[in-house]
Amino acid sequence: MLLIADNLTATNKAVQKAVVEKNPEPIRELVKNCVAAGAKAIDINPGPLGRNPEESMTFLVDAVQGVTNLPVLIDTPNPRAIEAALRCCKHKTIINGFSLEPAKLEAVLPLAKEYNADIIGYLLRPDGHVPADADERLQIALSIYEALCKAGIDRERLIIDPIVVPIAWQNGNFQNREVLTFIRQLPDLLAFPVRTVVGLSNLTATEAPRGKKLLIEIAYLCMLAEAGLSMVLMNALHKESVKAARTCRSLLDSGIFVWEEI
Amino acid sequence: MLLIADNLTATNKAVQKAVVEKNPEPIRELVKNCVAAGAKAIDINPGPLGRNPEESMTFLVDAVQGVTNLPVLIDTPNPRAIEAALRCCKHKTIINGFSLEPAKLEAVLPLAKEYNADIIGYLLRPDGHVPADADERLQIALSIYEALCKAGIDRERLIIDPIVVPIAWQNGNFQNREVLTFIRQLPDLLAFPVRTVVGLSNLTATEAPRGKKLLIEIAYLCMLAEAGLSMVLMNALHKESVKAARTCRSLLDSGIFVWEEI
Repeated sequence: MLLIADNLTATNKAVQKAVVEKNPEPIRELVKNCVAAGAKAIDINPGPLGRNPEESMTFLVDAVQGVTNLPVLIDTPNPRAIEAALRCCKHKTIINGFSLEPAKLEAVLPLAKEYNADIIGYLLRPDGHVPADADERLQIALSIYEALCKAGIDRERLIIDPIVVPIAWQNGNFQNREVLTFIRQLPDLLAFPVRTVVGLSNLTATEAPRGKKLLIEIAYLCMLAEAGLSMVLMNALHKESVKAARTCRSLLDSGIFVWEEI
Repeated sequence: MLLIADNLTATNKAVQKAVVEKNPEPIRELVKNCVAAGAKAIDINPGPLGRNPEESMTFLVDAVQGVTNLPVLIDTPNPRAIEAALRCCKHKTIINGFSLEPAKLEAVLPLAKEYNADIIGYLLRPDGHVPADADERLQIALSIYEALCKAGIDRERLIIDPIVVPIAWQNGNFQNREVLTFIRQLPDLLAFPVRTVVGLSNLTATEAPRGKKLLIEIAYLCMLAEAGLSMVLMNALHKESVKAARTCRSLLDSGIFVWEEI
């Protein structure tokens, strides 16, 4: 299970300020800390983009590339910003992402083909709503896969996000158990080892004490790892969660004595 | 997932001393602490028993019953000690346990019938060895179930222990993943909601730093909970592990907002 840092987001006030002031230093510092903590890719979420989406996005990508060669995820729905990022990315790039919403199919999916990038497919209904259960997730995964093939993109480029929901939702626990079921069943459905990713912080996207949030994050992370999740988008500076992810790797690895490396 | 304290064991020097001196106070203190920590049953493991196994066992059961009405597990292979415990137990009792080893089938299993007790069936081969994988565990579970029915015991009395192995074993990780697979498949095999239990401390029954052991224990506990384990035998005084178990319950419960009770 590969760790992707979700720390570089405009919901972080320091990031927002750095973008406004075009000061790359705070970004570089943050990214260095995430890499030191064990991140193997950096998600760039610029938040709402103003009149010149290309400029903010290029600034962020350049700031990240100034300190690491790790893959970056371009986490914006704005096609102009995605394209600007793809143009200036020197290393492996993942578009985060597209769905069956018509606007995304038309404007985002073709960019993966044009720039030879990996792309995350969100399991959302064409109207943007979260599917009801594991079965509907499997149906949507198939549609996502077909859309990707139709766009002429290699299937190895696809990463599926089954959409973890906040546990505070009325059916949050049910939905998140269905996500685990889905992750277990997906490889059989598509008949190849398709990669999966979830945004772990969605789980606790409500007000709650930090200690409680961490407990929930860690417990669900272990369940996701065992279900076979390929990548997890999470706060790389949550030390306890990163340790838990590493412990899971040691428990699930088929090597011998790997747990001694925790 | 019900928490059973494994703290009352003769491998604990203080327990050993209390038994030798026939001093119930340290036992009572330990049991009170386990109950306060969240234990819902107490496993009594008297270790090797001398010439008078009945005496030590009765002493231990009486000491436990002096401070709690919780169910007790009689964790000894000695049939005389098991019978002595069953005679003096006033509350719910679980024999821990029997297997397909001929001596256990002959001497232990009939006691569950005679004293109307629950009984744990270990998934071990008739020669006492651990099965190779999930499939062999399913076959042995079926044999265990048949032996129980043949002995005239209600199937609701059965609790299956699929045998967690130390991760330090050469194929430890493989075996423990097979345990998870087995727990998921068992209800379909037996066609009723049979209960399951594992001894969590087996996982780290080798020398390792305490912090590392706890990480492993917590990660695997979350996986077991999600697989559907009914009961876990563990150190009730490992606060972090107990919290993790409680968090799993909140994540897996189908109720609404249960996570607020962590």
